Amino acid sequence: MTSQEIFAEIQRKQSFLCVGLDPVWEKLPRHLHREEDPVYVFNRIIIDHTIDQAVAYKPNLAFYEAMGPGGLETLQKTLDYLPNNVFTIADAKRGDIGNTSGLYARAFFQQMNFDAVTVAPYMGRDSVTPFLEFEGKWVILLALTSNEGSQDFQMLTDEHHHALFERVLEKSKNWGSSENIMFVVGATQVSHLQSVRKIVPDHFLLVPGVGAQGGSLEEVARAGMNKRCGLLVNSSRGIIYASGAEDFGLAAKKEAQQLQISMEKLLNTYC
Amino acid sequence: MTSQEIFAEIQRKQSFLCVGLDPVWEKLPRHLHREEDPVYVFNRIIIDHTIDQAVAYKPNLAFYEAMGPGGLETLQKTLDYLPNNVFTIADAKRGDIGNTSGLYARAFFQQMNFDAVTVAPYMGRDSVTPFLEFEGKWVILLALTSNEGSQDFQMLTDEHHHALFERVLEKSKNWGSSENIMFVVGATQVSHLQSVRKIVPDHFLLVPGVGAQGGSLEEVARAGMNKRCGLLVNSSRGIIYASGAEDFGLAAKKEAQQLQISMEKLLNTYC
Repeated sequence: MTSQEIFAEIQRKQSFLCVGLDPVWEKLPRHLHREEDPVYVFNRIIIDHTIDQAVAYKPNLAFYEAMGPGGLETLQKTLDYLPNNVFTIADAKRGDIGNTSGLYARAFFQQMNFDAVTVAPYMGRDSVTPFLEFEGKWVILLALTSNEGSQDFQMLTDEHHHALFERVLEKSKNWGSSENIMFVVGATQVSHLQSVRKIVPDHFLLVPGVGAQGGSLEEVARAGMNKRCGLLVNSSRGIIYASGAEDFGLAAKKEAQQLQISMEKLLNTYC
Repeated sequence: MTSQEIFAEIQRKQSFLCVGLDPVWEKLPRHLHREEDPVYVFNRIIIDHTIDQAVAYKPNLAFYEAMGPGGLETLQKTLDYLPNNVFTIADAKRGDIGNTSGLYARAFFQQMNFDAVTVAPYMGRDSVTPFLEFEGKWVILLALTSNEGSQDFQMLTDEHHHALFERVLEKSKNWGSSENIMFVVGATQVSHLQSVRKIVPDHFLLVPGVGAQGGSLEEVARAGMNKRCGLLVNSSRGIIYASGAEDFGLAAKKEAQQLQISMEKLLNTYC
């Protein structure tokens, strides 16, 4: 998908919601346990009930790898179930030396057919650029993450008082363009969103951390939105575990609808 | 395995060789193509021919994920084939928010039964510590990698002229101990090995980049060895693709034997 196509879907759905498909066995509604592939059925019902509000879906690979070899088949079935007009993100946080990153890129973009993959920047340029060689595909590079540990290294400053996450933005934006790189900026980092936007005014940002992790949607939109929205805000647990009973699909829909209503207002205010 | 057990194997084999099991289909000897699981047969033959010299084996996950869902079964069979007295490393370079890193840890340590997993430090403490909660298991944290891109961020210096990789070593060594954390330091970074050893004199280092990437074994040993060796030097392509014909096992053995002879000398000189 191009950024224009993503923005068109945002306008059509009046929403910039990304749903994180991160299922764990212990939290699946019990009536699904008798299904042949309970996680796939769970994902399908979540998708059915959120597809009017979500412009993107983001399965985190850890949840599928933890299921053993069959987990990747469940992931592939889930991905194949998603319609073409939603943006699909493999939250994998990969990054390796060049030839190895190239293998990851082929796995996620060609074999599984994801639109985007999250990548960790620590190993630098040649660990990222192999992911940029696929037409219409995206790297979503970790810049400032939503977790407490983001303070350990991402906020370290150099002699010019630039934080590491700013260096990552400055350098990496030249490795590609706003048409094939996005950045992860946590919703818990809202005080730094303005510095992020100074460096990358046009890029899309993937924003986790609204909801369970405590970030505010309103503040994220005020500081982070640009004229083509420029935000994909992710919610995982708040939606997929809105209910642990048979009504989990409807409960997920209700949560997604509430977020969509807030997002529509924010789009009309800031975009 | 404990560090003492690893050192005992190093003394017994007079070698600190780690063999990288990174097979790509295009480079497999052609006669293996008719096997039901060519990569597993390839790995088994490489293991059979290097087990007297190697104290560790390191499959990089990318090579197995690129094979599709069946790839992880091939990896598991390979791992199950390895005897208990070799140290097994999942070269996965993972790292995510706490609960998600915990899932990766369970996948690699409990389900697959690896001894160690490589982890990227960018997301900080809570992305690493979930891997440290498994008795007898190891985190191998990226510090200074062997690739060109290591210059982009790992070498950035703060106002006290400390490079990021030094900050990573300083902070993370307190998250665990020399009994559950090792560090990746590329053989191409030999000029920085002394600064690494000032910060972590006792930890084991996993050293990629000897051979195909151009690092010197002699220089690595001189600057990096400690009184319990403290080094695992990895070779992948130099060993597993020493020959592309039917004699690939014997060719791998010859390469491993040559490295072992050099390593024995270095152990007697510097350890």
